[in-house]
Amino acid sequence: MAVHGGNVEEIGRKYNINHKDIIDFSANINPLGLNKKVKDSMISALNLVERYPDITYYNLKHTICSYEGIDLLNIFIGNGAAEVIFNIVRALKPKKVLLPAPTFSEYEEAVRSIDGEVKYYSLKEENEFRIDDNFIKDIDEEIDLIFICNPNNPTGVLTEKKFVEKVLKKAEKFGTKVVLDESFLDFVEEKFKYSSIELIKNYNNLIIVKSLTKFFAMPGIRIGYGISSNEAIIESINKVSIPWAVNIVAAEGVCTGVKEKEYINKTIKYVEEQKNWLYKELNKLDFIKVFKPSVNFIMFKTLKNINLKETLLQKGILIRSCGNYEGLSENFYRVAVRTAKENEKLISVMKTVSFDK
Amino acid sequence: MAVHGGNVEEIGRKYNINHKDIIDFSANINPLGLNKKVKDSMISALNLVERYPDITYYNLKHTICSYEGIDLLNIFIGNGAAEVIFNIVRALKPKKVLLPAPTFSEYEEAVRSIDGEVKYYSLKEENEFRIDDNFIKDIDEEIDLIFICNPNNPTGVLTEKKFVEKVLKKAEKFGTKVVLDESFLDFVEEKFKYSSIELIKNYNNLIIVKSLTKFFAMPGIRIGYGISSNEAIIESINKVSIPWAVNIVAAEGVCTGVKEKEYINKTIKYVEEQKNWLYKELNKLDFIKVFKPSVNFIMFKTLKNINLKETLLQKGILIRSCGNYEGLSENFYRVAVRTAKENEKLISVMKTVSFDK
Repeated sequence: MAVHGGNVEEIGRKYNINHKDIIDFSANINPLGLNKKVKDSMISALNLVERYPDITYYNLKHTICSYEGIDLLNIFIGNGAAEVIFNIVRALKPKKVLLPAPTFSEYEEAVRSIDGEVKYYSLKEENEFRIDDNFIKDIDEEIDLIFICNPNNPTGVLTEKKFVEKVLKKAEKFGTKVVLDESFLDFVEEKFKYSSIELIKNYNNLIIVKSLTKFFAMPGIRIGYGISSNEAIIESINKVSIPWAVNIVAAEGVCTGVKEKEYINKTIKYVEEQKNWLYKELNKLDFIKVFKPSVNFIMFKTLKNINLKETLLQKGILIRSCGNYEGLSENFYRVAVRTAKENEKLISVMKTVSFDK
Repeated sequence: MAVHGGNVEEIGRKYNINHKDIIDFSANINPLGLNKKVKDSMISALNLVERYPDITYYNLKHTICSYEGIDLLNIFIGNGAAEVIFNIVRALKPKKVLLPAPTFSEYEEAVRSIDGEVKYYSLKEENEFRIDDNFIKDIDEEIDLIFICNPNNPTGVLTEKKFVEKVLKKAEKFGTKVVLDESFLDFVEEKFKYSSIELIKNYNNLIIVKSLTKFFAMPGIRIGYGISSNEAIIESINKVSIPWAVNIVAAEGVCTGVKEKEYINKTIKYVEEQKNWLYKELNKLDFIKVFKPSVNFIMFKTLKNINLKETLLQKGILIRSCGNYEGLSENFYRVAVRTAKENEKLISVMKTVSFDK
């Protein structure tokens, strides 16, 4: 099983710290926390758990389609973005998959689960980990599937829609399918400038993956979905999907959440402000190199020899070590953008880090 | 997608009836409903959904293992028994699977999802749909996997442990794996007489499937698990499993539920009483033949030409038509055992059913 952030309980057990005393910068969750109306709707939904979820997910699908501006035929849902990713792979059964490195590890896990082969395209630090035209050269008749995380996790790099189109066009020639994971794109102010959802009209080799639970601060309840205009793909995904994959509570929470325009706008503004502040402050620390963020997390690299994760954990702060990402070494870390007070705490603690000479 | 009971919302839309006016006899859920402590624990758990579920499911696995009296190495969990069934099939990739007919349709759905072949063994009505020694004759080197639902859904027939051992022994010769779905066995008073869980010690080709959400009246929140002593099987299942498959709310609910001994005992007693009453009363109706139940549902067959599902729906009662089960015709139906009052309503309505001459 892959290592992920957000595992405060496990970390608490391992280091014998009460996990309630840990500020978790390792998972990228909306710092405003769970919206009250969303929570209330989930409490109400507990009155419905004696029933099975609506196996057709009629209301849920309608609500998401209206939120995304897409057609009901173009959506499929899953138990978190993780299941959406696995179901795409289970349905398409790719023999060879092209992945940028570093990127979210569950693409590889999904491919390995069906004994597929992964080909990595190394994103270069000197290029700020941006994806470039050389990536397109790697697309050939051997590649059945491509994953691009936009913005990329953990680097935070956004990929322009123009570039996505170049990938789609090249992929189209070989019957290669392209998955764009836009799970963090809701945090971006200019979301519509970057989202490739509208491209499904022109490219039936495109599949979008979305997770709303990071944005609505409810990853513990699990929900995700995928979008494609390709009916054959959706049909093959439905064939490998389990019934009742999304629980009633998550479905109600999301249906309430997407209508909370004020919370949505406040989140985007707050994350933008805090991200800029945290980026600026991290940049002042001379023992790290910080990479430009786009959403609610920031990647940096230590320039001195230190296990920063363990050092900060002793002070009650959990950050994400990125050493287990393909293409990154042990000195890379990722921190979430949290509340002003918590971000200040992170900076003040990082200022006290001392090094052996 | 297979047709299932428990779809009151869909039925309500189809027949233009407010689903709140329908008594749902089509899903087999504990008639005592959600336990208050379980519900309270789930409300509390909503305070935790801003975090990812513990990816190791440490507490959940410990609690279930203690409830089942098994070792921590012998369990794997899933998003409902449905996912447990699919993950077994995804991991074992059986080419040919032996299924009794009729039985729960998701075994076939799971096998079809990986393009496996299903061989049906027809349970005979004249034999009260009991599984018999001829089934064992059908186990040969071509069969990779067998599913037995115990008690069987929709027939309610219990299979003796002795017979299960005969299946396991024959299957062992060919390297055939055997899945026993004991999802309804918690409702049986003499559960330990029928459960094959202890057989995992002697048979490493045995996998048990469990769902606690029917017993604890929480199918809307999704949780299930599997049990096996075969570490290679568990490892291969973990390989095809998604991370964070079980949501925090379901995990907390089950951890609370299994400790509610009073509710558990009361449920078993109440279901036993109501099942006996409903069976006796149904037997008095001369237009149906009733099959002996064992748990919280009863199968019967109409002896006259009538669409009983539509007839009862007009009176606000939804029953499960069994016509889409392999091996059953349109005149088979299944009803859940519900509360005394609801069961009385079902009987009184069924008494008013009239037939064209």
